[in-house]
Amino acid sequence: MKFGGSSVATPEKIKHVAKLVIEKKKEGYSPVVVVSAPGDTTDELIELAHKITDAPDPRELDMLLSTGEQVSISLLGMAIKSLGHNVISLTGSQAGIYTDNQHTNARIVRIESKKIYEELKKGKIVIVAGFQGVNPYDDITTLGRGGSDLTAVALAATLIKHPKKCEIYTDVIGVYTADPRIIRGAKKIDKISYDEMLELASSGAQVMQSRAIEVAKKYNVDIEVKSTFSKKGGTLITREEMIKTMKGKIEEPIITGISYDKNQVKFSVTDVPDRPGVAAKIFGELAKENVNVDMIIQSAARNKHNDISFTTSHNVFNKVLKILEKVKTELGASGIIYDKDVCKVSIIGTGMRSYPGIAARMFKALAAQKINIEMISTSEIKISCIIKRKLLTKAMKALHKEFFGK
Amino acid sequence: MKFGGSSVATPEKIKHVAKLVIEKKKEGYSPVVVVSAPGDTTDELIELAHKITDAPDPRELDMLLSTGEQVSISLLGMAIKSLGHNVISLTGSQAGIYTDNQHTNARIVRIESKKIYEELKKGKIVIVAGFQGVNPYDDITTLGRGGSDLTAVALAATLIKHPKKCEIYTDVIGVYTADPRIIRGAKKIDKISYDEMLELASSGAQVMQSRAIEVAKKYNVDIEVKSTFSKKGGTLITREEMIKTMKGKIEEPIITGISYDKNQVKFSVTDVPDRPGVAAKIFGELAKENVNVDMIIQSAARNKHNDISFTTSHNVFNKVLKILEKVKTELGASGIIYDKDVCKVSIIGTGMRSYPGIAARMFKALAAQKINIEMISTSEIKISCIIKRKLLTKAMKALHKEFFGK
Repeated sequence: MKFGGSSVATPEKIKHVAKLVIEKKKEGYSPVVVVSAPGDTTDELIELAHKITDAPDPRELDMLLSTGEQVSISLLGMAIKSLGHNVISLTGSQAGIYTDNQHTNARIVRIESKKIYEELKKGKIVIVAGFQGVNPYDDITTLGRGGSDLTAVALAATLIKHPKKCEIYTDVIGVYTADPRIIRGAKKIDKISYDEMLELASSGAQVMQSRAIEVAKKYNVDIEVKSTFSKKGGTLITREEMIKTMKGKIEEPIITGISYDKNQVKFSVTDVPDRPGVAAKIFGELAKENVNVDMIIQSAARNKHNDISFTTSHNVFNKVLKILEKVKTELGASGIIYDKDVCKVSIIGTGMRSYPGIAARMFKALAAQKINIEMISTSEIKISCIIKRKLLTKAMKALHKEFFGK
Repeated sequence: MKFGGSSVATPEKIKHVAKLVIEKKKEGYSPVVVVSAPGDTTDELIELAHKITDAPDPRELDMLLSTGEQVSISLLGMAIKSLGHNVISLTGSQAGIYTDNQHTNARIVRIESKKIYEELKKGKIVIVAGFQGVNPYDDITTLGRGGSDLTAVALAATLIKHPKKCEIYTDVIGVYTADPRIIRGAKKIDKISYDEMLELASSGAQVMQSRAIEVAKKYNVDIEVKSTFSKKGGTLITREEMIKTMKGKIEEPIITGISYDKNQVKFSVTDVPDRPGVAAKIFGELAKENVNVDMIIQSAARNKHNDISFTTSHNVFNKVLKILEKVKTELGASGIIYDKDVCKVSIIGTGMRSYPGIAARMFKALAAQKINIEMISTSEIKISCIIKRKLLTKAMKALHKEFFGK
């Protein structure tokens, strides 16, 4: 059971979570509970760090950020204990979550689950701090944004033999066809495949962390996204075969949802020579500095020169610009163009690639609203367009109407 | 170097502390820095825990409280790093501070200082979280109120060969002859012995934790209490021989200071039989429940019965009352009387026992103000009186005038 920050934001909510966990225990399960930092604690700690220095040392930042979850686990531990149940809270390090040394965005290397098993055997409810682990030097590391999801799924993958099940409790009742804050008619999705969920997540739908879904897919962990504050059934994230069996459909394309990502900056390097190794040079330099690139578009060559465009998130803007200035000189490109006022809107669904009509419907729906498409990328299960950010709501509404009828 | 909570209460203060540490490094020292939780963080966390439950599980409470110092060390780490110096922050566990299993009031068992030495050898400034350690089960423990002082002194005792030196930075410029908030004429003490400081500390002067001074005495650690925000010389706490040598006096009694403790409740068990084992029974039962008793007075027997009175701190009031009710029945005592509105005022100085005139001067000064003395206890270097709490300021002023002339 994983509870997000909004589920443990106040003492009252923590007591409510304690009751949910105890119910699960009474049903005969041995719950292992992962919690995030309360409410906006992580953001507040980051803000605090930036009052000390513009560039906080990553190791020290992890030392700081990990306190947020430590507060949650101890408070939840007290709450459960005060209701008469045996419980133990564990930091990432105590729970045996070993990571690499990439501070602020570490990857889980292995989980040594002996301690958790021992405590479960004693009949205790085990609470584990999400988002954190320990590197080979005994330093505290954190797993990046949404890392608590990853902690929960990785624990389910490690601790449970079969069927592996992870419940993600949040402040919404599941995954929606589109952000319900934007699209009033958005519908809850009952079941969704890992791949579709991955596309939804990587397109900015904030429900779950991508890396968590990747691990769930790899280890066949069924994830149920549900509400902490409602008994309604949530959204099951599972294998595609399961979805098909359940839906009774095989070849029909299904649009699962519409998502967006406001955190996009578009860069273009103009007039780079059309020769092998150019893209490798640009994206190699970016990778060296740990910049995650989202969409990449290379225009068809013209006069033996290309434009190469890509998008990144806002927080790496300065870094990217610096790298591109260097690369520009080395490659003899004519210029660098960027646009910070863009966003990405995507439609997601299985089998859409084999139905070319779907892309056309998307472009037509946007065109009808006079929305200009600046970049397009497609995958097996997703079509994404970069558009001006101020047009996002209009675009979302048009697309939801086109594919979901309202 | 140890910095208290008020010295790291804001980002600006943390940056100031960073500069002090770097200065020390530039002077050629290898500073090991202990910090407390920022400002009132510990109290706020305790309050938060009590919103969850009236009786927080001690292990979980330690898990919670230890986050306060973790925030301080990471922020100070970032601050030092941002000024271009190599640094590493360590939790109590990472620093190898091993304690017993007495949660919320653990005792340091040993310090495995290998990690700290290694980091110092690399030229790093080492920051250690005060107030916390780790027990044999890998659980986080805390060392009780003022525990950061203990961490600092224990580290100085372990890490330094000779001369062992520990600087305690605080928001006052040293130890005073009386609380300067109450006595305007209070003077800073330049030098004080461990024993006198112990009496001052245990009498409620909030400058340093008693256990820290005990360890300093045991391992001959010179402590300098000084201000974080002033360059003025502070108070040196050292061996008695050093004080005498420095002062050039041998037999003359010296009143070092006047202290008080508002956190006192007086209990009396009336008409207990005058037979062996009665006091042992009462204080044995209290000890079993970990109640710290301060003053103990047993009246002279009358009709083969005694009154036994003692004081404790307010936070154990309910616990003590419950124990006494049980003991009362078992011993056949006539009743239990308590008074929550009392306080303790003490004069402290070396050699006062051999000068009976001093006690008389104290009692006379109080009597002149019509202050009734409810209990008296004396030691080699202290005379304490329990009086009504509302008379405290009057008593302090009278005593300071008597012994320091203003």
